[in-house]
Amino acid sequence: MSDSHEVTEQTALTPKRIEALHDGVFAIVMTLLVLELKIPEADDSAHLSAELLKLLPVVIAYVVTFANLGIYWIGQQIQFHFIERSDRAFSWIHILFLLLISLLPFSSGLLGLHPMNQIASMLYGINLIAVGLVSYGSWCYATHHHRLTSHTINNSFVKNVKRRILAAPFVALLAILLSFVSVTGSLLLYLLIVPYYIYPGRVDSLWRQKAVPHAH
Amino acid sequence: MSDSHEVTEQTALTPKRIEALHDGVFAIVMTLLVLELKIPEADDSAHLSAELLKLLPVVIAYVVTFANLGIYWIGQQIQFHFIERSDRAFSWIHILFLLLISLLPFSSGLLGLHPMNQIASMLYGINLIAVGLVSYGSWCYATHHHRLTSHTINNSFVKNVKRRILAAPFVALLAILLSFVSVTGSLLLYLLIVPYYIYPGRVDSLWRQKAVPHAH
Amino acid sequence: MSDSHEVTEQTALTPKRIEALHDGVFAIVMTLLVLELKIPEADDSAHLSAELLKLLPVVIAYVVTFANLGIYWIGQQIQFHFIERSDRAFSWIHILFLLLISLLPFSSGLLGLHPMNQIASMLYGINLIAVGLVSYGSWCYATHHHRLTSHTINNSFVKNVKRRILAAPFVALLAILLSFVSVTGSLLLYLLIVPYYIYPGRVDSLWRQKAVPHAH
Amino acid sequence: MSDSHEVTEQTALTPKRIEALHDGVFAIVMTLLVLELKIPEADDSAHLSAELLKLLPVVIAYVVTFANLGIYWIGQQIQFHFIERSDRAFSWIHILFLLLISLLPFSSGLLGLHPMNQIASMLYGINLIAVGLVSYGSWCYATHHHRLTSHTINNSFVKNVKRRILAAPFVALLAILLSFVSVTGSLLLYLLIVPYYIYPGRVDSLWRQKAVPHAH
Repeated sequence: MSDSHEVTEQTALTPKRIEALHDGVFAIVMTLLVLELKIPEADDSAHLSAELLKLLPVVIAYVVTFANLGIYWIGQQIQFHFIERSDRAFSWIHILFLLLISLLPFSSGLLGLHPMNQIASMLYGINLIAVGLVSYGSWCYATHHHRLTSHTINNSFVKNVKRRILAAPFVALLAILLSFVSVTGSLLLYLLIVPYYIYPGRVDSLWRQKAVPHAH
Repeated sequence: MSDSHEVTEQTALTPKRIEALHDGVFAIVMTLLVLELKIPEADDSAHLSAELLKLLPVVIAYVVTFANLGIYWIGQQIQFHFIERSDRAFSWIHILFLLLISLLPFSSGLLGLHPMNQIASMLYGINLIAVGLVSYGSWCYATHHHRLTSHTINNSFVKNVKRRILAAPFVALLAILLSFVSVTGSLLLYLLIVPYYIYPGRVDSLWRQKAVPHAH
Repeated sequence: MSDSHEVTEQTALTPKRIEALHDGVFAIVMTLLVLELKIPEADDSAHLSAELLKLLPVVIAYVVTFANLGIYWIGQQIQFHFIERSDRAFSWIHILFLLLISLLPFSSGLLGLHPMNQIASMLYGINLIAVGLVSYGSWCYATHHHRLTSHTINNSFVKNVKRRILAAPFVALLAILLSFVSVTGSLLLYLLIVPYYIYPGRVDSLWRQKAVPHAH
Repeated sequence: MSDSHEVTEQTALTPKRIEALHDGVFAIVMTLLVLELKIPEADDSAHLSAELLKLLPVVIAYVVTFANLGIYWIGQQIQFHFIERSDRAFSWIHILFLLLISLLPFSSGLLGLHPMNQIASMLYGINLIAVGLVSYGSWCYATHHHRLTSHTINNSFVKNVKRRILAAPFVALLAILLSFVSVTGSLLLYLLIVPYYIYPGRVDSLWRQKAVPHAH
């Protein structure tokens, strides 16, 4: 879609605008999640406590989804650090990415309301897998023959990011398979994804050593 | 409204702020669409599946509207690449544009709830036509005698963008007319608009060849 | 609160961040307004048309409030063009301003639901007056002894902006008084505010002639 | 997590993006609060007034929470003035911070609906404490051995900010304890937090005297 650097660098479609749309959508999705927490109407303290306790699975789904949004927001920020240009296809990859991100309040709300239901657990997993695969596609598209990145970007770094991105959809796939045996087991697997990404992995150290020194 | 370049370049109304408001409104509208997906309450898996299937038309309306928002977000981004100044009238054109964009969750939600109803299909088409015409008006106002653009912008490029913008309202008009014969037919026409805009057309190639080389 | 230029220019509270919060709140409020438009459930076309017609007052309140938001968004943008510094008090003035702006979906929704009710009309007017007075206060605070503006800003320009800002709360006050005689009359007065501000008035011409030539 | 300045300054995780996410989340949370104000359906003026009066506790909770959001928005803005770098841990601290901020519409809505209920009052206090402690943790993490700040930042300034941040969670803790004796008393304590932070305290004067002169 872009035959030379001179051409794409003139492009009107900049990564900056995609980042701005990301920040907007992430901020809203993070905040919309809380609307699933319906304020209980019960008047006396005993009833109110009971009603609030019933919200616990929704709260857990809320925190886990918030953490997942954090993972993708940080992950995309790292991707965009190395992306210097954009084009029409790349813009559409990210509109698809944001479509899937904005479905998370629905699929996590469904899981919060029906935590022990296999269909809810599977749909949540499918949503995570779809987000992960589009994120992977974005990185592949941008780095393929340095289409949208600097030429100085390191090959083993590109591969490491790919592996790291694929971890989440892989675990989500395992969780879906596990849900046929145990729904609780699948929920625990979803929880496992979060600490894996929060703990700074090999990507960070590689990136510190070899990444382009003065990228924007 | 602006008699000379020296005058408008002092203006307090910058295209940057309009772009920021665009990003905000698009991010929110994209995300609000998901609120039309009500989480089903059914408890057992069979009922839940049935309830989720009933959401299918809403999901399709959601995806199509999201794609339309993507079309306009990308289209406006290309327009703003060539716009160097703003003025009061241009700001108001874009406030009207955002008013019509923010009506999309309503008209697409209506279509999702009543997919086989002609009135719902017509209102959706009218919304698309109105968005398209205001987008067209924005481009005409900005490019007329290079009011808000650089003087180096190519005339055949300006015309090509105009033609491309008008395609969507034209197809939406056909869809409205078709809805008197077949509502299903009109829905299929709305679907057709999306691939036309995603596939990079003549505008991109013209723009690559002739557009101003160092526009912001 | 700020005794010298050297001091305030070091400030961590920049007008840029206030503008970013403005863009966010305005984008959301503009979009939230549409949530007052409940999608009718009626199935056949005759009922659906009737239900949609019932939404007409809400649609009108929606458009008028959207236009009012446009007025304030453009008005603030012009104010901020001349504001070079910020401080704690100025930040709080704008948090109060945004509090009142974010009440507009409530007061305009109330008016849309009860268009012929005097209380709804008065509350809408009070909201408009409060927004206008805080906007006036912001301009007075910033321009008083050039507290937050450049020293080159013209005195008659400052006064003209003040007069222009006060027009809306003044008309809203008349509308409130008129509501005791005729609620319809008060609604018409609210409608009058919009064209007054959209039509570029004396402020624009003064500002073109005398405003600081290279303000940011 | 970062061993030298050269390393972290290459980082892809910039404070700018965290600030953009902050602005987005704060703008949305500020605006979502108004959704707790349900528009009354009553038709005649007498009933409408009565219904609107019933909303008063929700309005008060709304204003107080808006003020608290203003406090944290301004507080974070001052923090970020001195923060020059970011890293993965700092990003996660702020995702946690925004998670707690986005819970405020729930806990303040709960308090508005059940103003005389001790559980509602305690949950509101716990939310304020959690926000305050994470804000404190962010400042400690960033300033520890100048991890993310300039080396010129003054030690007594760092300490003063810490003390100032801790005031709110300390008062909220007192309010929780007081709620066992008097729920009304605890509500009054929450109100006290607001003027303390709006009134510019010792931090501002210290910061004017000693802060780094040309920090970004």
